[in-house]
Amino acid sequence: MKSFDHTTLGQRVMFGRGGAVKNVVAALDSLSASRVLVIADAFVAELADTIATRVPVMARIDEIVQHVPVANGNAAVALARAETVDAIVSIGGGSATGLAKVVARETSIPIVAVPTTFAGSEATDVWGHTEGDRKTTGTDPRVLPATVVYDATLFASLPGPLTLASGLNALAHAVDGFWAPRADPINTALGTEGIRALVPGLRGIAHNATDLDARESTMYGAYLAAVAFASAGSGLHHKICHVLGGAFSLSHADTHAVVLPYVTQFNGGSAPEAARRVSDALGGAPAAQGLYELRRELVTVDSLRALGMPESGIDHAVDRVLPLVPPSNPRQATRENLRELIVAAWAGDPVKHHDSEEQR
Amino acid sequence: MKSFDHTTLGQRVMFGRGGAVKNVVAALDSLSASRVLVIADAFVAELADTIATRVPVMARIDEIVQHVPVANGNAAVALARAETVDAIVSIGGGSATGLAKVVARETSIPIVAVPTTFAGSEATDVWGHTEGDRKTTGTDPRVLPATVVYDATLFASLPGPLTLASGLNALAHAVDGFWAPRADPINTALGTEGIRALVPGLRGIAHNATDLDARESTMYGAYLAAVAFASAGSGLHHKICHVLGGAFSLSHADTHAVVLPYVTQFNGGSAPEAARRVSDALGGAPAAQGLYELRRELVTVDSLRALGMPESGIDHAVDRVLPLVPPSNPRQATRENLRELIVAAWAGDPVKHHDSEEQR
Repeated sequence: MKSFDHTTLGQRVMFGRGGAVKNVVAALDSLSASRVLVIADAFVAELADTIATRVPVMARIDEIVQHVPVANGNAAVALARAETVDAIVSIGGGSATGLAKVVARETSIPIVAVPTTFAGSEATDVWGHTEGDRKTTGTDPRVLPATVVYDATLFASLPGPLTLASGLNALAHAVDGFWAPRADPINTALGTEGIRALVPGLRGIAHNATDLDARESTMYGAYLAAVAFASAGSGLHHKICHVLGGAFSLSHADTHAVVLPYVTQFNGGSAPEAARRVSDALGGAPAAQGLYELRRELVTVDSLRALGMPESGIDHAVDRVLPLVPPSNPRQATRENLRELIVAAWAGDPVKHHDSEEQR
Repeated sequence: MKSFDHTTLGQRVMFGRGGAVKNVVAALDSLSASRVLVIADAFVAELADTIATRVPVMARIDEIVQHVPVANGNAAVALARAETVDAIVSIGGGSATGLAKVVARETSIPIVAVPTTFAGSEATDVWGHTEGDRKTTGTDPRVLPATVVYDATLFASLPGPLTLASGLNALAHAVDGFWAPRADPINTALGTEGIRALVPGLRGIAHNATDLDARESTMYGAYLAAVAFASAGSGLHHKICHVLGGAFSLSHADTHAVVLPYVTQFNGGSAPEAARRVSDALGGAPAAQGLYELRRELVTVDSLRALGMPESGIDHAVDRVLPLVPPSNPRQATRENLRELIVAAWAGDPVKHHDSEEQR
């Protein structure tokens, strides 16, 4: 067994269908909270209203802007201070959680997060904000939500395709974690359990978007995938997606959905144990091909080209990714093989098992 | 998926063969420690000496007494306060860790734990001390070691049979967790991973007591089992062993080793998913029978009778255990079936698969 240095982040997770209000109240009670700031996406305003009848809400923020603009963060910090808030409840996707984190970073006020997507931000100590086009991110133990409250009935209001892309994003957290810089047996075990829950969950949602069992399985898998990812760090897949998203303004979740099978094909032959874990969760299909087929089952987007990346951008992307390839990557990346990977993802080439075999 | 309420305890785990000194130094550095109390079992005095050449040790306690007598705890607290200690390094088995925990509970001083057995206390927020015959235990977040440093070379000095009994104790943490009061998908996943590492690890140690790979696998499995157990709580197995140990002064680890297969036989038919997880880790053998055969491979003790429990104590044990059976237990316990379980463990009856089948 290799040496490793693993940090487990302490957090309470409350999981129950239809239990959001009850569990938020219990979580705030455990924190002895008496002056609450609620940050809630507009589409969950009703839930926020109900919570406000049960706990002492001093302030509410209903306008959630993507990527947490610095001005919005500052305004929220000022509001929390003016109202001497002692707990934050965030309800919504990554942007609602993200705004709460910016407040927690400045004030050390604990967060109770109620996620409504599979983004996973609630399981990490990563914060971020944007100033104009520039995004700054960092890690800080104060921004990790003290408690996460999962309730599958809240996810039911999400539109199906966004749900599926968000779920594939979660799958990428777990798979990329297997060869990420701080991969270790513990985060590998958590990521594996995450994939095992995500695959049947996503298939169930694709079959019936209102299937609450399938949403719960996906929610649980996405949580474990985020825990694993926060611990293991960004692998090759996330480096590629980060470069592509930034350089060509591609849709975040769709980019992940397209790229994952090609990265798995690229690395799988050099990381047989990781490939086996993915394959097992897919019911025995070869890892890369299985992920490719799964993506085809779930979403219609099929290539970086379809997402709007110009063919002329491929070499630029290769130039930008090459120096970012983590030393932990199981296969040595060269300009040539990295270009092949990105060309295939750009064109949406079918991923077949024998391709992967030939690379071993 | 059932509702659950899971608390993950935050902790850093550093794992590396021969890396104890380096990792302890790094852990203390992260804690900005400048006045260290070292609590070290006599047999690791050399390691404690080496650490003392690298970090500012203000005080040392070398005399470790089992079960942390209150007087020893008070003396250690007084020493830590007198020397204005800002970090504790504990090196040794459960009693060394336990003494450090008693100090941390009173002073909030962080612990760096270096375990040399598979007891798992380093992964929990449980503390305990004894006054005469009376043992008091409790949980407190302050007693959870901030960092655990695992180094398989330290375990090499343990005598083989104690190692194996301690490892079977760890196995009981994981198996009993599957039907414990706070069992949930997360601690079940961690316990499963723990068993998967423990079984081959213990077999490896039995084959060659100095096999460091086997010790590392066992060490890793014992850690995950302890994390799972701390989260899931005590199930039927631990209730039985606690009663037997207290009433008849039986050896702790040996009692666990004897009782586990019978509890698994008792519950397995009513908890098929748990039985499957155990069976998978055993390479496909039926759960209860497989655990019985594993115990026979590893240790010679074969019955509660051999441990010194009188036959006349069986009814007393049944009376004491019956009201303690957790409501979460998958099979309804009655005076009759509980008596059968304890009689079988007392006599050391062979556990066969068809017995378990008949109980379904």
